[in-house]
Amino acid sequence: MVFRVAVAGCTGYAGGEVLRLLLEHPAVEIGALTAGGSAGSRLGEHQPHLWPLADREILPTTADTLAGHDVVFLALPHGTSGPIAEQLGEDTLVIDCGADFRLTDAEAWQQFYGSAYAGSWPYGLPELPEQRHRLARSHRIAVPGCYPTSVTLGLLPAVTAGLIDGHDVVVVAASGPSGAGKALKPHLLGAELMGSASAYGVGGGHRHTPEILQNLRLLGASEPTLSFTPVLVPMSRGILATCTAPLADGIELGADVRDAYQRAYADEPFVHLLPEGQWPQTQGVVGSNSVQLQVTVDRTAGRLIAVVALDNLTKGTAGGAIQCMNLALGLDETTGLPRIGVAP
Amino acid sequence: MVFRVAVAGCTGYAGGEVLRLLLEHPAVEIGALTAGGSAGSRLGEHQPHLWPLADREILPTTADTLAGHDVVFLALPHGTSGPIAEQLGEDTLVIDCGADFRLTDAEAWQQFYGSAYAGSWPYGLPELPEQRHRLARSHRIAVPGCYPTSVTLGLLPAVTAGLIDGHDVVVVAASGPSGAGKALKPHLLGAELMGSASAYGVGGGHRHTPEILQNLRLLGASEPTLSFTPVLVPMSRGILATCTAPLADGIELGADVRDAYQRAYADEPFVHLLPEGQWPQTQGVVGSNSVQLQVTVDRTAGRLIAVVALDNLTKGTAGGAIQCMNLALGLDETTGLPRIGVAP
Amino acid sequence: MVFRVAVAGCTGYAGGEVLRLLLEHPAVEIGALTAGGSAGSRLGEHQPHLWPLADREILPTTADTLAGHDVVFLALPHGTSGPIAEQLGEDTLVIDCGADFRLTDAEAWQQFYGSAYAGSWPYGLPELPEQRHRLARSHRIAVPGCYPTSVTLGLLPAVTAGLIDGHDVVVVAASGPSGAGKALKPHLLGAELMGSASAYGVGGGHRHTPEILQNLRLLGASEPTLSFTPVLVPMSRGILATCTAPLADGIELGADVRDAYQRAYADEPFVHLLPEGQWPQTQGVVGSNSVQLQVTVDRTAGRLIAVVALDNLTKGTAGGAIQCMNLALGLDETTGLPRIGVAP
Amino acid sequence: MVFRVAVAGCTGYAGGEVLRLLLEHPAVEIGALTAGGSAGSRLGEHQPHLWPLADREILPTTADTLAGHDVVFLALPHGTSGPIAEQLGEDTLVIDCGADFRLTDAEAWQQFYGSAYAGSWPYGLPELPEQRHRLARSHRIAVPGCYPTSVTLGLLPAVTAGLIDGHDVVVVAASGPSGAGKALKPHLLGAELMGSASAYGVGGGHRHTPEILQNLRLLGASEPTLSFTPVLVPMSRGILATCTAPLADGIELGADVRDAYQRAYADEPFVHLLPEGQWPQTQGVVGSNSVQLQVTVDRTAGRLIAVVALDNLTKGTAGGAIQCMNLALGLDETTGLPRIGVAP
Repeated sequence: MVFRVAVAGCTGYAGGEVLRLLLEHPAVEIGALTAGGSAGSRLGEHQPHLWPLADREILPTTADTLAGHDVVFLALPHGTSGPIAEQLGEDTLVIDCGADFRLTDAEAWQQFYGSAYAGSWPYGLPELPEQRHRLARSHRIAVPGCYPTSVTLGLLPAVTAGLIDGHDVVVVAASGPSGAGKALKPHLLGAELMGSASAYGVGGGHRHTPEILQNLRLLGASEPTLSFTPVLVPMSRGILATCTAPLADGIELGADVRDAYQRAYADEPFVHLLPEGQWPQTQGVVGSNSVQLQVTVDRTAGRLIAVVALDNLTKGTAGGAIQCMNLALGLDETTGLPRIGVAP
Repeated sequence: MVFRVAVAGCTGYAGGEVLRLLLEHPAVEIGALTAGGSAGSRLGEHQPHLWPLADREILPTTADTLAGHDVVFLALPHGTSGPIAEQLGEDTLVIDCGADFRLTDAEAWQQFYGSAYAGSWPYGLPELPEQRHRLARSHRIAVPGCYPTSVTLGLLPAVTAGLIDGHDVVVVAASGPSGAGKALKPHLLGAELMGSASAYGVGGGHRHTPEILQNLRLLGASEPTLSFTPVLVPMSRGILATCTAPLADGIELGADVRDAYQRAYADEPFVHLLPEGQWPQTQGVVGSNSVQLQVTVDRTAGRLIAVVALDNLTKGTAGGAIQCMNLALGLDETTGLPRIGVAP
Repeated sequence: MVFRVAVAGCTGYAGGEVLRLLLEHPAVEIGALTAGGSAGSRLGEHQPHLWPLADREILPTTADTLAGHDVVFLALPHGTSGPIAEQLGEDTLVIDCGADFRLTDAEAWQQFYGSAYAGSWPYGLPELPEQRHRLARSHRIAVPGCYPTSVTLGLLPAVTAGLIDGHDVVVVAASGPSGAGKALKPHLLGAELMGSASAYGVGGGHRHTPEILQNLRLLGASEPTLSFTPVLVPMSRGILATCTAPLADGIELGADVRDAYQRAYADEPFVHLLPEGQWPQTQGVVGSNSVQLQVTVDRTAGRLIAVVALDNLTKGTAGGAIQCMNLALGLDETTGLPRIGVAP
Repeated sequence: MVFRVAVAGCTGYAGGEVLRLLLEHPAVEIGALTAGGSAGSRLGEHQPHLWPLADREILPTTADTLAGHDVVFLALPHGTSGPIAEQLGEDTLVIDCGADFRLTDAEAWQQFYGSAYAGSWPYGLPELPEQRHRLARSHRIAVPGCYPTSVTLGLLPAVTAGLIDGHDVVVVAASGPSGAGKALKPHLLGAELMGSASAYGVGGGHRHTPEILQNLRLLGASEPTLSFTPVLVPMSRGILATCTAPLADGIELGADVRDAYQRAYADEPFVHLLPEGQWPQTQGVVGSNSVQLQVTVDRTAGRLIAVVALDNLTKGTAGGAIQCMNLALGLDETTGLPRIGVAP
């Protein structure tokens, strides 16, 4: 069986990555490609790497152009998925790569995004406890943000095993600029970014903060607190998240934290604990849906430290989205998803 | 049917790329992994991205460890494939990613490589005229060098259509350092390369020069001459080759050179002429077996200019090698090979 | 004596580099900083590295705001220097970092730039024969383009010594994107550029082509022809130009081309021929006004090959401009100009 | 007066940077250049950017070759400065860019470096309280590590003002690989580093950990604890350190932390607090002795967050060393040191 798939927002980085993966996916047929301002042009002008689709005309993003598909991916600016999603048929599988349906708390949405709250959909992180069967029955899926995916996978085993209780989590995550999209902003120019590292959204202001806290609570942290600092570094893709938290009361400094991680991810097809002593590099996962991580305890600091590498556009966005699509369509979860990073 | 494949030189960049691709190939089973100095260690120490093979023990590279496989890839330093290849069974498909069996001229080998001449094998560039059926019957294949692949594909349609006659070809090719292998040399250190471009092997000294000339002759150029300058630029992978040559006598400046390229590559699964006006970027092919190219005539200079982008480790080495393996094993030529580059 | 200097176009890359150098220059005082759309804001918002000027208010670019200075640098978009320059006093030293006054041929200007021809000023490349004394008496100076500076310095000794006659020059120049200015264009985004090389302006279309040809003629080439291909590579700054040309009739393949280069540049404070066998890397000149170059003859190709490294923003624009300012003001030519690149 | 200066370890990155700066310093004359294995070769082979010294012969590093200089810089591998320093005259100003004389605690030295403890010298961070007059009288100076310089400057105002008490400090610092020196190790190869971020020395193992703790204690923190994670990112130079710590008891979330930083650094020539709302990027300080920083309080996390950018080779090593030399020689502290980063 072949599913017919539309992609709204096909000219951006997230939409382009969805298409890169769909082009190698054995069970889909690529239908409508839509966008806003670029409607009427050919996809090849915007995504030269997607050569099999170079001549495809880009349609406007409307309920009409998106109708008649089994699956619709929305890769749109924050705040714009809500209105279009309302108009799509209930039987259509709609997967939102944006933020619109991620937060269960309308107030947090308002504070961090400032647009109308669209509600929340089943959260597209299959590695969360009990999440796979929810996604398997769903026709609406909200793909997590790239930073929340990395931090949540980095701390999930520690929280669920009670090694940390979620208070005073400190995360610093290095990321390439593709996570910010194909936006024409001076600080995203190549000349600004190459040879340079810079922090942004410092002090609690980054929009992924409430989403990470939501996930920590969902994993069992009763009153999590988080200091989250994203750092732009000179690579197109990739996130390297250093996630630290004090050990919970009663956990000994010599606790075998690796064991908890090994157990948590033993059966996960895409999350890989590295051999002891090896620390992740983003190169090892670039272009793939894999996550590599390592964990240890800093005994003098009394903190657990997990370092997570993933590709923000693949597992962090489009690959995670297709993993969810596979689940929701009853396909094998790994169908069509590269497992090995393009290193070096 | 599943073919059992060994990889000699599994710790280097070429060997690692062969394995990355084999891990996603549907018709192979990965057998012996061998190396020189690293024998006895685990692959995960050397190639952390190849996580499914992390625990595999590396064996020494000998005729014994490589015996009993349907296919053996040799990804060894120049001059070392010859001796080991002699000892492998005639029915085994042996694919040499190194230079040992590329040159038909023993003297050229001696001049540029300085070791014992090992002979020449069928040349693993299926896009050459009449080459596919040769490769389909062969048990020995010499994979081309990465620069020769790019330049040959860049000028093939022009030479075979008589648009250029191969004299005074000038090529400058920007490349990432992975083409130089995982060699511990000061000029390959990250701090030296990042933020910097540098030329090397200038003036006719690069070892790929005689191979490119051999290919131009094979395409019909009677007395080709070549000025070839490789330039290291700050990216792990990728070659962007700017190939220029004066138009042949009798060819008008307004000649439709695109037409010759379109015809030459219309049926090629991996070589893609971009839409008019678009010029290749290596990002569009990184991690894939695809080649993107464009061509034009500089009317005031009287030169044809073709620009070619490919991934030196994929189409330029390991992907090209597996494309040849597919042909020699009777599989579809594109089996298991990514077609779409990991952009951005 | 301290000269008062204004900079028009202070928010861009060229203007910023002029200011970086002026801030360390012992004989100047920085006066008006002007720009177009950013007038009214503070310089610190646009150029955070120029911290001593962070609080300076940006004025609009008008004849009034630029009046009353000894020196005015124009770092404006092509086609806009002409009108403003007309209104500046004849005694003011006006140095245009843009293209407006570079071309002596109005027709070439029209063809490549398409705006009103503004005339030509003394050309700010002191290394040209007899040029220093012209610049020393001038109140108007047109700073060369960054590519023309690199190619002209790369071939000057060869042309003046008659080693080449300027026909069939082929140049491929790798460059960082800062040469394109702080323009908000998709292909200049960091995610597009990092990890990627791409050609542009291929086939004779780049605007620096007529300027290079003008310089070759000025050096004595009677009918030069040029194939020029610029290549964007992932570094903020730097040009590495590979310049090749057939040896002139009568020049032997074994000719001592190094000798001509050594003689030509023996007394140049900023142009350095590397020791034999060493080839330039851009890192060695980044941030400095120095040029490093090397030359050889490819005997089988019959071509002279010169490779030149310079910083497109320093020697290629702002440093060259200040070198000219020093000459025109009667200061030592090297005053305030860094000579050593920031390597690694 | 001109001081005669020798540099031991002239072929490495730290030694090269000392020489880059000395070449532009108005009060020094460069004397002996020494190294270990490279003795007998010319400096140009190792440091092509230092063209005025290209022909200088490298001498062996001995007490004899270093004798007869006013100043000796030691840029040697850890553990080797001790023995050579013992043999240098007491009147010679000896500045060690290595770690040998940084730690006051012999036990910490033993644990983290494992070689013979050499003792401790006055610590070359002039920005520390009361440190300038100590350095002004000293003939022996230990230059801080690059990470400790960044973290110490990032937290100094907070500790001395009592805003934090030094417990539970968490630092994640992105750095280019030049800080690791010109060592031929696989993980420092360009192909490994470009396009990739990776953590190392995680969990308290990095050698700069005890030095940072020593500095925090010196500033007044009674029992500091530290979780320090260095992250390699794809840029040659630069450190971006994100330093966080819980506010001390009694400090309100709304406390004006910027005020403390402004006061602390108002008179510092090289440490610059950015305008409110701007966060540092390493590009802004590359090649200069400047430090840019910003600070805020994350109110929900209850943590102070300071982000610091410096160039690991300049202010982090060689520039800091020359700043100390200036003080010890009675020169103006800023003599010969670039203040403005090479951006973009």
